Amino acid sequence: MKVAYKIWLEHNGKAFGEGPYELLKRVERTNSLHEAAHQMGMSYSKAWKLIQTMEKRLGFFLLDKKIGGLSGGGSQVTPKGKDLMTRYGRFHKDVKEALEKIYLKHFGQKRGKTWK
Amino acid sequence: MKVAYKIWLEHNGKAFGEGPYELLKRVERTNSLHEAAHQMGMSYSKAWKLIQTMEKRLGFFLLDKKIGGLSGGGSQVTPKGKDLMTRYGRFHKDVKEALEKIYLKHFGQKRGKTWK
Repeated sequence: MKVAYKIWLEHNGKAFGEGPYELLKRVERTNSLHEAAHQMGMSYSKAWKLIQTMEKRLGFFLLDKKIGGLSGGGSQVTPKGKDLMTRYGRFHKDVKEALEKIYLKHFGQKRGKTWK
Repeated sequence: MKVAYKIWLEHNGKAFGEGPYELLKRVERTNSLHEAAHQMGMSYSKAWKLIQTMEKRLGFFLLDKKIGGLSGGGSQVTPKGKDLMTRYGRFHKDVKEALEKIYLKHFGQKRGKTWK
């Protein structure tokens, strides 16, 4: 047996979680929401809608979009977006470790054996 | 902003979580799966299917069903079911406390103010 979970941040609804975090990570690497969405098997319009919903709920922009130009445009994560990603990444790591510890405390041992 | 989550135990699929825990709590109080399901706005057949699925995945019985008799039958939580409930209840309480603490650590403060 093992513990499973979903965890997210709420502010006027679901405001940030694993999906947006992964998407922004890929935007950071590729400077492209198109490419980031593609890597996650998500349509561009779905990714863009997701970002807009999160931005609305959070109350700040996650992406700086550059339209056109010599490089053909691109997207960059805003400083507030980067701050959120850093916090969320550390938060999620701590949560993962705590959950495994708490699971083991309550289900790890039963008369010297693993419970179940 | 606040943290939100769903947490459950997995063993051959989703094996136990908040829904089954609440259902068994009500069976303990009422000695009736009918009544427990009714209190949760769930059909009896759905509740019974849920219990059977959990039992199959966990590998032990959660309910002792008494059919008919003077009292018209009824359900009681098995000793193994009670053990699981106790563990899960404590587990969930610890998880709740830990998540709030970890959330505050990463999102509670920003230059002296609440983040966001």
